[in-house]
Amino acid sequence: MKVVHYSEVPGEDAGEETSGVTIRWVISAEDGAPNYYMRVFEITPGGHTPLHRHAWEHEIYILDGEAELVSEEGSSRVGPGTAIFIPGEELHQIRNPGESLLRLICTIPKT
Amino acid sequence: MKVVHYSEVPGEDAGEETSGVTIRWVISAEDGAPNYYMRVFEITPGGHTPLHRHAWEHEIYILDGEAELVSEEGSSRVGPGTAIFIPGEELHQIRNPGESLLRLICTIPKT
Repeated sequence: MKVVHYSEVPGEDAGEETSGVTIRWVISAEDGAPNYYMRVFEITPGGHTPLHRHAWEHEIYILDGEAELVSEEGSSRVGPGTAIFIPGEELHQIRNPGESLLRLICTIPKT
Repeated sequence: MKVVHYSEVPGEDAGEETSGVTIRWVISAEDGAPNYYMRVFEITPGGHTPLHRHAWEHEIYILDGEAELVSEEGSSRVGPGTAIFIPGEELHQIRNPGESLLRLICTIPKT
């Protein structure tokens, strides 16, 4: 059993086409996770993930703050306690339209 | 993209060998999730999941309240912001030793 507080896991910059996004891999292949991985994202006010699509799905849960979910159909705003399933190949982006830190869990399958 | 607040998903009783546990399947096979599923557990003070083991892993994140994690090696207490990886075949149980509702995310792979 691995037990870790998310804040103990070093944050990594999320790279190109993002702004103000830090990723902490709280459960990864290095832990022996065989099927999927858990990351905690922190997105500063005005920050965003890439507007992109890829073959694998995401399963997301909003922890704190406000999130703007951008898809092919437009955008919507949601808050803590919201679960989001983004199927593979669907265009998506998450933006922080609020004034406080947006924190969320973003899981991905092994690819 | 499926977007749902966890509180909108009906809670199900967790069944035998549990006490005070409600499960909400926020992302499941019915949503087209191909690899793994997300549930929100609510455990009342004094409640607990079964002490058991099974072939598949869990990836867990504590949202609110206090959790006692029971394993072969004993038990430990953790709070919100804690991520837990339970490999397949490892004995485990989650208890609520606190005085407020324990809420957590518990994910499982497709089996």
